[in-house]
Amino acid sequence: MHYTKEDIKKLDRVRRLNIINSISGIKPANLIGTISKRGIENVAIFNSVVHIGSDPALVGFIMRPTGDVERNTYENIKATDSYTINHIHVSFVENAHYTSAKFDSDISEFEKCKLKPEYLDGFTAPYVGESQLKYGLQFVEEIPIKINGTILMIGEVQHLYLPDSSVAENGYIDLSTINDVGISGLNSYYSLKKFGQYPYARPNELPDFK
Amino acid sequence: MHYTKEDIKKLDRVRRLNIINSISGIKPANLIGTISKRGIENVAIFNSVVHIGSDPALVGFIMRPTGDVERNTYENIKATDSYTINHIHVSFVENAHYTSAKFDSDISEFEKCKLKPEYLDGFTAPYVGESQLKYGLQFVEEIPIKINGTILMIGEVQHLYLPDSSVAENGYIDLSTINDVGISGLNSYYSLKKFGQYPYARPNELPDFK
Repeated sequence: MHYTKEDIKKLDRVRRLNIINSISGIKPANLIGTISKRGIENVAIFNSVVHIGSDPALVGFIMRPTGDVERNTYENIKATDSYTINHIHVSFVENAHYTSAKFDSDISEFEKCKLKPEYLDGFTAPYVGESQLKYGLQFVEEIPIKINGTILMIGEVQHLYLPDSSVAENGYIDLSTINDVGISGLNSYYSLKKFGQYPYARPNELPDFK
Repeated sequence: MHYTKEDIKKLDRVRRLNIINSISGIKPANLIGTISKRGIENVAIFNSVVHIGSDPALVGFIMRPTGDVERNTYENIKATDSYTINHIHVSFVENAHYTSAKFDSDISEFEKCKLKPEYLDGFTAPYVGESQLKYGLQFVEEIPIKINGTILMIGEVQHLYLPDSSVAENGYIDLSTINDVGISGLNSYYSLKKFGQYPYARPNELPDFK
């Protein structure tokens, strides 16, 4: 099947949303936890978290701050400079999915979606108690993507929590040991199974390819 | 296990690279195909492709253009305004991994890694013949991320190719039907198994959570 740019433009809106939201490939499933100045907790699912750098440890995500759901997250980050990113596991994927509903801003998605807010080591923003791999970030920069009004939000990792058993000697984290999930499109969830690990690639050490 | 910002800073470099490259969660596995003005083809693996918008259909990826491997991709995109993004499947993941080796710029990774360059519908940049879901993009914008010298590259989809059978009626694409893979860290590969799909979330239609 071949779609041109014009074909994509002419697609029914929901069909286009679903197709184009799938073509980047599998997406990470994370919950972002924040708290407002008035103390109202917020947690929302994001599928656009992306690695920016490891030294300093920088993580980004794309947001559309004019959206009802994302606006609370955005405003809380701007107000407190503080947020958490929490991996979603198979055991609470349904709870996580429903944080995408447009709740009023004075309502905590933690309560509505039966997720446990957790405060660790004096960090301002709440973590998700059910998540085994999570980290607290200090907001660093927002980079506007003018062409469609989205924003790349960047933060630096201040605290990182993860199970000892998920980390191999060299620092590799096996995401399947913590039952991490992936997302395709907007609402399809995938389990992960590690099947291969290859060495650092050097031009003079190529294998005999099949 | 709890790492503070200072603990992360003090980690051995490779260990830090591996840990921090894993904390964003599962990452999509894509090959980016380009061609230089002089006609030298290039293909390289990227794990940072991210959805930017669906109307217009915009896709981004993060690159470090000072890196040896990424520089060819960057220069070719800037010279031709044209590149392709190709999903990686289980069947050629080893070939795809080794495109990350630092080959000289006059060497085609297609040839070295036994991947087939494919030209479709008059588009400038080569696709990966082995890939079932792939698209050609026109370069739109590069957004510098000053804090660490990386760049968010954004393109608009001009042509999209995918198997008819992978698309459900509403436009959902099941990535497991085409044996797509995910990446964690820099060199661990995961197969995907779809296990759940939830409806569009509305505050007044919450399920009975476990």
